[in-house]
Amino acid sequence: MLERSHLPVTQAPRERVDIALGERSYCIHIGAGLMAAAELYAPHVGGGGAAIVTNDVVAPLYLAKVKKALGAARVAEIVIPDGEQTKTWQILNRVFDALLKARCGRDTLVVALGGGVIGDLAGFAAAVYQRGVPFLQVPTTLLAQVDSSVGGKTAINHALGKNMIGAFHQPQAVISDVATLDTLPDRELRSGLAEVIKHAFALDTAFVEWLESSMEKLVQRDPAALVHAVRRSCELKARIVAADERETGEQRALLNFGHTFGHAIEAGTGYGAWLHGEAVAAGMVMAAELSQLIGHLKKTEVGRVRELLKRAGLPVTGPALAPERLMELMALDKKAAKGRMRFVVLEAIGRAALRSDIDATAARAAIVAAVQ
Amino acid sequence: MLERSHLPVTQAPRERVDIALGERSYCIHIGAGLMAAAELYAPHVGGGGAAIVTNDVVAPLYLAKVKKALGAARVAEIVIPDGEQTKTWQILNRVFDALLKARCGRDTLVVALGGGVIGDLAGFAAAVYQRGVPFLQVPTTLLAQVDSSVGGKTAINHALGKNMIGAFHQPQAVISDVATLDTLPDRELRSGLAEVIKHAFALDTAFVEWLESSMEKLVQRDPAALVHAVRRSCELKARIVAADERETGEQRALLNFGHTFGHAIEAGTGYGAWLHGEAVAAGMVMAAELSQLIGHLKKTEVGRVRELLKRAGLPVTGPALAPERLMELMALDKKAAKGRMRFVVLEAIGRAALRSDIDATAARAAIVAAVQ
Repeated sequence: MLERSHLPVTQAPRERVDIALGERSYCIHIGAGLMAAAELYAPHVGGGGAAIVTNDVVAPLYLAKVKKALGAARVAEIVIPDGEQTKTWQILNRVFDALLKARCGRDTLVVALGGGVIGDLAGFAAAVYQRGVPFLQVPTTLLAQVDSSVGGKTAINHALGKNMIGAFHQPQAVISDVATLDTLPDRELRSGLAEVIKHAFALDTAFVEWLESSMEKLVQRDPAALVHAVRRSCELKARIVAADERETGEQRALLNFGHTFGHAIEAGTGYGAWLHGEAVAAGMVMAAELSQLIGHLKKTEVGRVRELLKRAGLPVTGPALAPERLMELMALDKKAAKGRMRFVVLEAIGRAALRSDIDATAARAAIVAAVQ
Repeated sequence: MLERSHLPVTQAPRERVDIALGERSYCIHIGAGLMAAAELYAPHVGGGGAAIVTNDVVAPLYLAKVKKALGAARVAEIVIPDGEQTKTWQILNRVFDALLKARCGRDTLVVALGGGVIGDLAGFAAAVYQRGVPFLQVPTTLLAQVDSSVGGKTAINHALGKNMIGAFHQPQAVISDVATLDTLPDRELRSGLAEVIKHAFALDTAFVEWLESSMEKLVQRDPAALVHAVRRSCELKARIVAADERETGEQRALLNFGHTFGHAIEAGTGYGAWLHGEAVAAGMVMAAELSQLIGHLKKTEVGRVRELLKRAGLPVTGPALAPERLMELMALDKKAAKGRMRFVVLEAIGRAALRSDIDATAARAAIVAAVQ
């Protein structure tokens, strides 16, 4: 194929996932070395040029490469510091300053180059700059490739709450280059795998089986295995998002398997001590235990959840916190609807369901069971 | 009709305009005394209660009335200072603080009670608070009733540009109570009439004729005349917006009749010296003169534009600025597309057209003609 001749030599296939959202539909391209594939950027670059938003860790690695591939006459470079603490209005305002000083107009393409924080911040900038400009995501972490690249959620934090200010703003396209994962620290790779595993247990038995047979390859960063894991995760999430784009129904809540417990773990240990994926991993074990307690899963099935997470190098027990403390934190969580806590349980491996009739005793027992 | 028994006695009819935007469709209710009509609010108030955003001039007049009509168990009151200078991130952040402190969730209805500034600011707050909450507009100025209530444009200002940060966010409904115009200063009423006149000359010959026969009633704030003027303005703008919701085509630019010149007048005299409608009025005379210069309008038709504006108490000559200065400012205006200035001219009374082939000599001559 002529098209492939532009790519670096690799055994990894090049895949695409179409996200069907009517006039907001877009395509996710997945492969090794795709970041340099000029033909993927070309359809989205117009007369207004482009502005690349990235951070000071990613910029030295990939900024020049993406700038070259964009091939636009005018490309503004906006480099912000690395870290979750940059998802503030102050930093967002620096992005607006830079866009205005570079005379970016409503036809300028904003390119988000980095992990989830960059995607959230640059995506929100694109959503509200001059009432919305097109944007393109080039995610460089596994978590961003399997999670943030589908769904259109963008946000910044407010002093009184995480992700409180934001928008649903779909990208023009996503270019997921698994070669960028070679430079990712082990813990971050594993944190991304937690979301891959979550998609599988919540939505797709066959994908669970594939992960059970392929986890070593993923941990060793085999490009072909990574491409498959990213593609299948995106497909599964896309199906949910297409049915519930703005999270108004209950469908999208299924993607929160492990997250009710996980958010409490993150809050209870201080944000940053546990990575998001690590907290979700321990949270999935608790949710699986809960599913067994209410009579859905067998003990051996809970064992499959625990085992796969272990093989991914993820924690399968919670932090050294009293179960009562986690219970309190869950009650505070914003996902608590109308005074009752909501839990995503597994009715079977690969089939999640939303429940708001779980009593506190069962939830507490699940936390205790996960510690043992 | 039973429904009418809830309303104060008035001779003014109660009208509605349906804004057809697919799943974002909504209804504008227009009448005298509507602000207290609880049945208009009821369909939009859910379990999440409401938050009224207003300013310190409007609050003493109408806040209690709207709060009562809302009839929600929980209503937060957010009162900000009056004035265009409040359309900043700092003030917006105070709105977010108040929403979070009042534990407003994604099902809280934000109610914008006030003029265009409140509509822009509260509308943008609603667009991005928790990635978007429903909002309802209760405009209390004529300008807001005929202009801001159709189109979904919301925004705040940035140090480097007006309305640079914003969103398209359609309201659930608009409640336009012409009785609120009784407390409006004369200059502001006339500034609103400028936009009514603009809609007529740009889009509807019959409406021009109606205005020519009804201007005295409007200036005297006759409720029935005001209801008709607001309704017809909304209908005309709605037709344009339905065809071009996000201003990506050229249709919506037709609503900028008088605005290329008008923005330059506002910028050249310092924002606030001329009210927006006053600048647009003088700008319409210039645009009409330009239309004559390029062979579209007859001299008597330019006279009709001038005459109607005069009867509304609006300026028909520009400020004491050199024509060259206005030309410079127009070149800077953000509506300049790809280096060429764009002008909305009249091909006939009631038929505007967008032109980007006007040479500078003709534009300058139009400015000079409007001063004489």
